[in-house]
Amino acid sequence: MIIVMKNDAPGGEIEQICEEMRDRGLTPEKIIGAHKVVIGLVGDTQELDPDHVQDVSPWIEQVIRVEKPYKRVSREFRHGQVSEVVVATPQGDVTFGQGHNIVVVAGPCSVEDEAMIIATAKQVKAAGASFLRGGAYKPRTSPYAFQGHGESALGLLAAARQASGLGIITEVMDAADLDKVAEVADVVQIGARNMHNFSLLKRVGAQDKPVLLKRGMSATIEEWLMAAEYILAAGNPNVILCERGIRTFDRQYARNTLDLSAVPVLQSLTHLPIMVDPSHGTGWAPYVPAMAKAAIAAGTDALMIEVHPNPSKALSDGPQSLTPDQFMALMQELAVVGNAMERWPQLATVS
Amino acid sequence: MIIVMKNDAPGGEIEQICEEMRDRGLTPEKIIGAHKVVIGLVGDTQELDPDHVQDVSPWIEQVIRVEKPYKRVSREFRHGQVSEVVVATPQGDVTFGQGHNIVVVAGPCSVEDEAMIIATAKQVKAAGASFLRGGAYKPRTSPYAFQGHGESALGLLAAARQASGLGIITEVMDAADLDKVAEVADVVQIGARNMHNFSLLKRVGAQDKPVLLKRGMSATIEEWLMAAEYILAAGNPNVILCERGIRTFDRQYARNTLDLSAVPVLQSLTHLPIMVDPSHGTGWAPYVPAMAKAAIAAGTDALMIEVHPNPSKALSDGPQSLTPDQFMALMQELAVVGNAMERWPQLATVS
Amino acid sequence: MIIVMKNDAPGGEIEQICEEMRDRGLTPEKIIGAHKVVIGLVGDTQELDPDHVQDVSPWIEQVIRVEKPYKRVSREFRHGQVSEVVVATPQGDVTFGQGHNIVVVAGPCSVEDEAMIIATAKQVKAAGASFLRGGAYKPRTSPYAFQGHGESALGLLAAARQASGLGIITEVMDAADLDKVAEVADVVQIGARNMHNFSLLKRVGAQDKPVLLKRGMSATIEEWLMAAEYILAAGNPNVILCERGIRTFDRQYARNTLDLSAVPVLQSLTHLPIMVDPSHGTGWAPYVPAMAKAAIAAGTDALMIEVHPNPSKALSDGPQSLTPDQFMALMQELAVVGNAMERWPQLATVS
Amino acid sequence: MIIVMKNDAPGGEIEQICEEMRDRGLTPEKIIGAHKVVIGLVGDTQELDPDHVQDVSPWIEQVIRVEKPYKRVSREFRHGQVSEVVVATPQGDVTFGQGHNIVVVAGPCSVEDEAMIIATAKQVKAAGASFLRGGAYKPRTSPYAFQGHGESALGLLAAARQASGLGIITEVMDAADLDKVAEVADVVQIGARNMHNFSLLKRVGAQDKPVLLKRGMSATIEEWLMAAEYILAAGNPNVILCERGIRTFDRQYARNTLDLSAVPVLQSLTHLPIMVDPSHGTGWAPYVPAMAKAAIAAGTDALMIEVHPNPSKALSDGPQSLTPDQFMALMQELAVVGNAMERWPQLATVS
Repeated sequence: MIIVMKNDAPGGEIEQICEEMRDRGLTPEKIIGAHKVVIGLVGDTQELDPDHVQDVSPWIEQVIRVEKPYKRVSREFRHGQVSEVVVATPQGDVTFGQGHNIVVVAGPCSVEDEAMIIATAKQVKAAGASFLRGGAYKPRTSPYAFQGHGESALGLLAAARQASGLGIITEVMDAADLDKVAEVADVVQIGARNMHNFSLLKRVGAQDKPVLLKRGMSATIEEWLMAAEYILAAGNPNVILCERGIRTFDRQYARNTLDLSAVPVLQSLTHLPIMVDPSHGTGWAPYVPAMAKAAIAAGTDALMIEVHPNPSKALSDGPQSLTPDQFMALMQELAVVGNAMERWPQLATVS
Repeated sequence: MIIVMKNDAPGGEIEQICEEMRDRGLTPEKIIGAHKVVIGLVGDTQELDPDHVQDVSPWIEQVIRVEKPYKRVSREFRHGQVSEVVVATPQGDVTFGQGHNIVVVAGPCSVEDEAMIIATAKQVKAAGASFLRGGAYKPRTSPYAFQGHGESALGLLAAARQASGLGIITEVMDAADLDKVAEVADVVQIGARNMHNFSLLKRVGAQDKPVLLKRGMSATIEEWLMAAEYILAAGNPNVILCERGIRTFDRQYARNTLDLSAVPVLQSLTHLPIMVDPSHGTGWAPYVPAMAKAAIAAGTDALMIEVHPNPSKALSDGPQSLTPDQFMALMQELAVVGNAMERWPQLATVS
Repeated sequence: MIIVMKNDAPGGEIEQICEEMRDRGLTPEKIIGAHKVVIGLVGDTQELDPDHVQDVSPWIEQVIRVEKPYKRVSREFRHGQVSEVVVATPQGDVTFGQGHNIVVVAGPCSVEDEAMIIATAKQVKAAGASFLRGGAYKPRTSPYAFQGHGESALGLLAAARQASGLGIITEVMDAADLDKVAEVADVVQIGARNMHNFSLLKRVGAQDKPVLLKRGMSATIEEWLMAAEYILAAGNPNVILCERGIRTFDRQYARNTLDLSAVPVLQSLTHLPIMVDPSHGTGWAPYVPAMAKAAIAAGTDALMIEVHPNPSKALSDGPQSLTPDQFMALMQELAVVGNAMERWPQLATVS
Repeated sequence: MIIVMKNDAPGGEIEQICEEMRDRGLTPEKIIGAHKVVIGLVGDTQELDPDHVQDVSPWIEQVIRVEKPYKRVSREFRHGQVSEVVVATPQGDVTFGQGHNIVVVAGPCSVEDEAMIIATAKQVKAAGASFLRGGAYKPRTSPYAFQGHGESALGLLAAARQASGLGIITEVMDAADLDKVAEVADVVQIGARNMHNFSLLKRVGAQDKPVLLKRGMSATIEEWLMAAEYILAAGNPNVILCERGIRTFDRQYARNTLDLSAVPVLQSLTHLPIMVDPSHGTGWAPYVPAMAKAAIAAGTDALMIEVHPNPSKALSDGPQSLTPDQFMALMQELAVVGNAMERWPQLATVS
């Protein structure tokens, strides 16, 4: 349930309403928009009569029940207003959200060694990326496949962060590693295979770093939003949703089916920022540029693209990685579409 | 198997090779490219030794086996060169293909009455469409649902064609109706539900009008290309492939999952032009603009968009139809992305 | 809407009610059960008030609206009573239905030559099959693959019918061939790829031979029932539904996913008899016996099993065919489960 | 790679070969069959030449490379021999495996209170179950749904174990709870949503209790076997695979599609015992009996069936739960099919 306040409702009045709601056993969350303040109510609101809530104050404009099973992540909960996720990086704040430029995250699937990760970081930064991705802990289908360098790779990411000024996005697979990961990462990633790992969702919800939540490979949009709801319900409002391809009946040419319609669908359902990962989404480097451009045109807020100095020798996911040169060329192409969508930094077109 | 001729190979030499191949029981197809001529060989080439074919003439540069199960539709069969489908309309030829502007097809799901179809035709033409779509025969899940006005609707489409100057695209569901449909239609459509109706594919392959082949709702890319191969094998080279959404595990918000990665995948596999239908692909009008823009950025050659003067009263597929005004507004947005991709007529941005 | 008559309602009264309903523009269908007569009403019943219909006669026990989109095929339409499909074969009537023994259909994917089809017919008959399957017209993914021997194969099926006494089930792919097929076939098959070919459904609904309707490879249960509704709505009540495996994300070991839960689901929704095809359902002969037994235990009314004298040389679908000896052995195993389910002819266990 | 020893190979010789393999950096695992001993080799065997291994001892019959990506779980690794999982329960050992009677696991989705769980335990035991299932920790789509009573529920399961003599199967969702769960559970369950939680798989592989590994809702057979491989690779050979329905395009009537063909497919690929859960597999109690019988006929080694004293008031998954009376009646039906398959305790038919 949400309480929409009238324009210019006095702060004291809003506080008093919140207090009243707390007395009724509910948790109020104040959302300050451009013109209005909305109070989201979490808790057992099923028995609550919206008319009775309306009577609490003459400054209340409207009381609306959120009909969706997800509450805090729903767009209704913010009365239609989008949210932003602001991430502090060595070079300053980067903002993910609908009114902002598209944020580009790039880097290798796995952190392999120091030279490789630092060189790649510098190259993707030069091409216009704001974040470096790179796996320290890797979810692999086979127990005999390379599982990531783990803790030592976190150190290399920290070094790359310092060397390049990029923010770091890396995956956590095990709650036991969360503190170590969160120490290095500017954004903590939950991978597709853990989207339904509710224990882990609660843990990342109970820490402060923003969370990148990848869609499970056969998760419905609603299940995905419910997974995000776990994180918000645990106290962390900074979640970015990443579409990375779903599993369908056809896997012959593209490894997954990148569900770009998730972009407009999510925009209609949630206020959270959206990222698209065309590298995992297609699984094949030659298809990445077309889908990256399409993602921008569809309205994504961010892109995640795999870049590896030598894809044919990558320890994981080589076939879907671009070389740094290919990435540089792609960024030029993306700038054209990004500019058409008015969501690309102006300098990019000059370079 | 294809025979790639050397530059400037004399026409007589090429004819002689074709003759020789016919003598061996094969069907040669001459593909004239910008610089080279390629002879595609159809028939039982399994036992044929490429080296022996090479020896037939010193003007042969290379003999290559087409490894894909589809032959005539494969990009290899044209040695990498894309093909064009040129359609004669009252207002002149319209060309579908990779080097050309994006062709926009618009109109209602079903032809309902004369006033409606003529008014819609004029409106979508004013907005920039080149073709009018409209169903005379409608494949409906229920035998009790509106099945289209049939033959009388064909007459209305002919009237709309004359009144607007637009080309006509309409679906044939039954071989018995093909002659009547082909008389009116500039492009004959095979719907998703008939993509595996091999009898019908052979029939449209044996007539002259270009064919729009929609992807079956759970057809793999390869099955789709094989369906196109049926048409080409029957003698009709003018096929346009239309992605219209596939069936996946999630149908809650979008009715189908529009598989935009089909665009780059097809471009790597076939020389045929590609159309995207975001209306059926999402099933919901508010999601159409984002996906139409994304389709352009992904590289589609054409778009099919449902437009109805009064979607809430449409006899079929109302929820996915735009109003003429919404379509007009969408075309302005598409022009921006289309111009960024350098595939939009220059005037469109002015209007 | 259905009208349930009281026990012992006089025939004249029932006729009069039917007459009354015809006057209202509806089509009544009389269903005579063990104890009761039910009148199914087809037509525009949306505006009809059940109470008003009830007032038509004191012999009416109850008037019930059929809420499902499918009417004639729904179990409600027969007030819960199952239907039977009785097929005349050279050796007498064979009945498909829930209260009867399981009917076994066996034979090769394609009719290859006379010796082969007659020998196979005799062998599967000796093992206990009642029907011979065999394709004259084959839906093939590739236009270059064997397309069936067509009309000449129909002659061979007629010969096999006469030689063995088995009923014949064979597929029609094109309305133009329907008369020829129906002349030979005791049951006309609509294949999975044509389940959504509504023109063809209407045609087989307008002729007299019973129809075997295979489930489309990604058809929902509801779509499948709607396809059956097309046939019943066109006048043919004799439809058998055949589950043959659906398309899912995993095709590595089994070619399709045999959806055995379709059996209890269909039993709860429709009165029509059910067949299961574990050969297409798994695509691999070693998996056929387990799934054939499971189908019996799940409650199927019939089984379709591919048998070929020499699977490794079959012109189509060899990997999923049993040899006649394997089929003979399987029938012994099936008899054990069939007897446990009390749906197997007693002699079978003796042989 | 596996080393198949000749019949009657002396134990000392076998030990010496193992020693030799250890010296080469490999981990040998001795599998003692009815007639032969097989030594499985795990480690980097890619460079190993089978002929060189053969030369190690004249008592070696054959050296075979395991071509599948899963090694320890593959049927090849045991040279075709099935394995058994023996579980100690208060009433003695219960054996899961192909040569044994079908093991029945029953109980509620969630442990709700002491009276409920103890009464249910006694009832399902009386009906013939050997194990009680019941969730203490529940994976729920919504953070606001009942999450299980957690640790206190574990105490109730222990009480039910003592009161009924049944073994206990319960799920672990978080490595932090594993010790507590393993203290009470006779078999530790990994739920479908955690099948790809590789951290958790490694943890349950590093403890001693047998593990029930449910198939992920869209996991391929191969991914499922790789998940099992994680557990075996971590040292725990006692894994039971549980098919519980997969996600497909149709969820209208059955919540999932129970993939019974997984039973024969798994039997051809792995030596591990197989369980089927028709309750989650269909999501609807009326469909459970047909699918339970079908699972037996397909060859399953065990069944998991949800039973709740009052399904309409269940805190989770009520619609798919049988009442104790329905379960009792079902067990009579299962006995008939179980006896036909010669895998049911003889007494059951008498009762």
